Amino acid sequence: MSGLRRAAARAWGPPRALRAFSARPRDRIVETVGKLLQTKAQLETEEGKKNFILKTPKETLTGKYGEDSKLIYDLKDQGGELLSLRYDLTVPFARYLAMNKITNIKRYHIAKVYRRDNPVMTRGRYREFYQCDFDIAGQCDPMIPDAECLKIIHEILSALQLGNFLIKVNDRRILSGVFAACGVPESKLQAACSTVDKLNKMTWEDVKNEMVGEKGLTPEAADLIGEYVKLHGGLDLVEQLLQDPRLSHNKLAGEGLRDMKLLFEYLMLFGIVDKISFDLSLARGLNYYTGVIYEAVLIQQQNDRVEELVDVGSVAGGGRYDGLVGMFDSKRQKVPCVGVSIGIERIFSIVNCKVKASKEKIRTTETQVLVAAPQKHFLAARLKLISELWDAGIKAEMLYRENPKLLKQLHYCEDTGIPLAAIIGEQELKDGVVKLRDVATRQEVDIPRQKLLEEIRRRLES
Amino acid sequence: MSGLRRAAARAWGPPRALRAFSARPRDRIVETVGKLLQTKAQLETEEGKKNFILKTPKETLTGKYGEDSKLIYDLKDQGGELLSLRYDLTVPFARYLAMNKITNIKRYHIAKVYRRDNPVMTRGRYREFYQCDFDIAGQCDPMIPDAECLKIIHEILSALQLGNFLIKVNDRRILSGVFAACGVPESKLQAACSTVDKLNKMTWEDVKNEMVGEKGLTPEAADLIGEYVKLHGGLDLVEQLLQDPRLSHNKLAGEGLRDMKLLFEYLMLFGIVDKISFDLSLARGLNYYTGVIYEAVLIQQQNDRVEELVDVGSVAGGGRYDGLVGMFDSKRQKVPCVGVSIGIERIFSIVNCKVKASKEKIRTTETQVLVAAPQKHFLAARLKLISELWDAGIKAEMLYRENPKLLKQLHYCEDTGIPLAAIIGEQELKDGVVKLRDVATRQEVDIPRQKLLEEIRRRLES
Repeated sequence: MSGLRRAAARAWGPPRALRAFSARPRDRIVETVGKLLQTKAQLETEEGKKNFILKTPKETLTGKYGEDSKLIYDLKDQGGELLSLRYDLTVPFARYLAMNKITNIKRYHIAKVYRRDNPVMTRGRYREFYQCDFDIAGQCDPMIPDAECLKIIHEILSALQLGNFLIKVNDRRILSGVFAACGVPESKLQAACSTVDKLNKMTWEDVKNEMVGEKGLTPEAADLIGEYVKLHGGLDLVEQLLQDPRLSHNKLAGEGLRDMKLLFEYLMLFGIVDKISFDLSLARGLNYYTGVIYEAVLIQQQNDRVEELVDVGSVAGGGRYDGLVGMFDSKRQKVPCVGVSIGIERIFSIVNCKVKASKEKIRTTETQVLVAAPQKHFLAARLKLISELWDAGIKAEMLYRENPKLLKQLHYCEDTGIPLAAIIGEQELKDGVVKLRDVATRQEVDIPRQKLLEEIRRRLES
Repeated sequence: MSGLRRAAARAWGPPRALRAFSARPRDRIVETVGKLLQTKAQLETEEGKKNFILKTPKETLTGKYGEDSKLIYDLKDQGGELLSLRYDLTVPFARYLAMNKITNIKRYHIAKVYRRDNPVMTRGRYREFYQCDFDIAGQCDPMIPDAECLKIIHEILSALQLGNFLIKVNDRRILSGVFAACGVPESKLQAACSTVDKLNKMTWEDVKNEMVGEKGLTPEAADLIGEYVKLHGGLDLVEQLLQDPRLSHNKLAGEGLRDMKLLFEYLMLFGIVDKISFDLSLARGLNYYTGVIYEAVLIQQQNDRVEELVDVGSVAGGGRYDGLVGMFDSKRQKVPCVGVSIGIERIFSIVNCKVKASKEKIRTTETQVLVAAPQKHFLAARLKLISELWDAGIKAEMLYRENPKLLKQLHYCEDTGIPLAAIIGEQELKDGVVKLRDVATRQEVDIPRQKLLEEIRRRLES
């Protein structure tokens, strides 16, 4: 399938500590060890024999999240040092790069983050939740890695079959240019950004009131901003704004718009431009973004109107943050970065709703064969048989009882959806066969013991 | 391969939140969502529509770890509540079962745990590290799930090819019986256990001194214990102790020994008894064990002598803990459990040493194809081609530059071990072909564009 191998190919360096988990404990361990080896090998070759110091709990989260900082969980350790739980995976990633002098890396990471927010279980909002991050760090030509991030969001959301979605894109430089052109002073820019970011939850009137009342903008500036932030479209809108007399004098806006044009060209080559909307109301609250920003939302087509499903909020988001790594580096050396965060629980809550609506039953195990016995005193025979199946890589289970009733064993198959039962009793043992039962059809066939593995594999494949 | 599917088959219920990660971010998300769905589905069917409250940070770790409690990281949250980082995955698992009234489950979990210990990087000892836990909870007939846990340790350590290993087994009830038979009062049993557990790091003299000096045992009791804890062997030793007059009067010891005999029978059926050593010096420090305990160590065969590699300590361990879930349940309802913990970093440090010694080079990416261009102004062609490869599931990369030099692109393949380069330039575009280069042999062949995917797949398979 698409994307399967390609995404992995994107991870080109350390830390790959969380990259390649497979679906089974043994293999997850084999793979985890492999990844750590790879990380270490690369740290040693590319970065020299530098000391790799792990001081993860002492996170420096302050001043990275703007207004969202209030959501950080603060803790105090025994030595009296201030400790916090990580708010996202981006800031720890940037700190990792700076600490290890890594200037070139591509990796993904799935892990928990913590926010002191109001949990809403039904919408997949928790205080402790998983994020999946993908980031590309390093000096690159404009918008090439940025376009790849959008391609990945597109690929993931398509694969998950969540329904129709839209990826809104904007650029912090364009926003800055718009705000400056509307007469917002530099000092109020970040605050104004945070307010614009609330446009999908609040009406324009409320946003304007907050801008004027709380953030100290003039009503004229706010109205002018209102004209811009309602704009959204494609390459045509980019072209239109490139001609806009107010923006054309603004250096930042010009850069942002020219890069946006480039981005659209690349997204066209990637064949995903139909899901992209250049949206001037997209601001994203976090302080650390410096260039392109994006957010994926699910949409519903209703009577020719496209409606955003605001219930769950965005399911993925990210952008370019060229200054963050430098903030952790003693020499302030910058490492340009661009990345994506996927919200696992939000996606889960959507998929869960869909499954509920479809009344589909979901199997809770992957067991392929139940090893069963029809008579008492066949525990040894069951243990021997299950061991053979396990050693052959077949997912097998048996009831943890010395003498379970056959009916109980067969009911267990039906309840948990196990497709096959391998039954061994007195007669089977005597005949050197195993009775293979198709749980759905209830058909039973005696299979010679030496042909059992082959027959089970054949049935599982068909 | 063996164990691949079988281990997954063992996971039969919630929480499977960490069960089925695959190797790619997209699929990891698809799978994570799937697992959460399964968990939720099962919680809803089996356990009714109970409210599932997440209060993970408020762990109750006190009184679970005996002397090791001093290693717990303590934190204080903003509200003044006492908080700690989890010390292992067993106690949180038990709490989860109790909170959700789960009486039957099999699952694995790979996650970080925290210990306020002295880190030794070279030996894979960290304050923050991964554990992989596998547990079977529920009412079962004696030693059936216990034997399965040992089978899993055997399978994992064999698959990792760490070299020769030994799984020491003992039983808390046998130890209790031995201590009682040696005249140790009930009140000093746990303390004496902790001291015996240090036998692989300390000489018997030092252990004895600690027993007598610190733990208040009589020298006679300590000497008698010394006679027992030096014993190790197989089924023969179990039989011998079953005849031991001192132990035969002790109810607990009798139960433990009869179960140990059963365990050996099952392990023989599983074909792993040659790696098992019934070792009376194995005590394991943690308070919560109630029955069989085990620990896997790596061994070296030197001049007919088997030596334990004490440098890394044990690589896996576990046992039966029938009382832990009940401690979290308001009605003290017990759920018998048995489980295994695998130490990822310790295993990694061993594999790393082996790889270093072998001077084997480890690839740090899985990229199969680099999309390259020999001339300037072929960024669009590269983007289009890489998008096709990605969509077809091929792991492809390209340099994030508009006009990289061909030599630089080919060097990148050689440095990172990418086996194939797909080169597209003026001539190739004109001819409707892509030049496919075998990086190792430097052979290049023009492949018609419509046959490219097929040819790449063919080459990657061979």
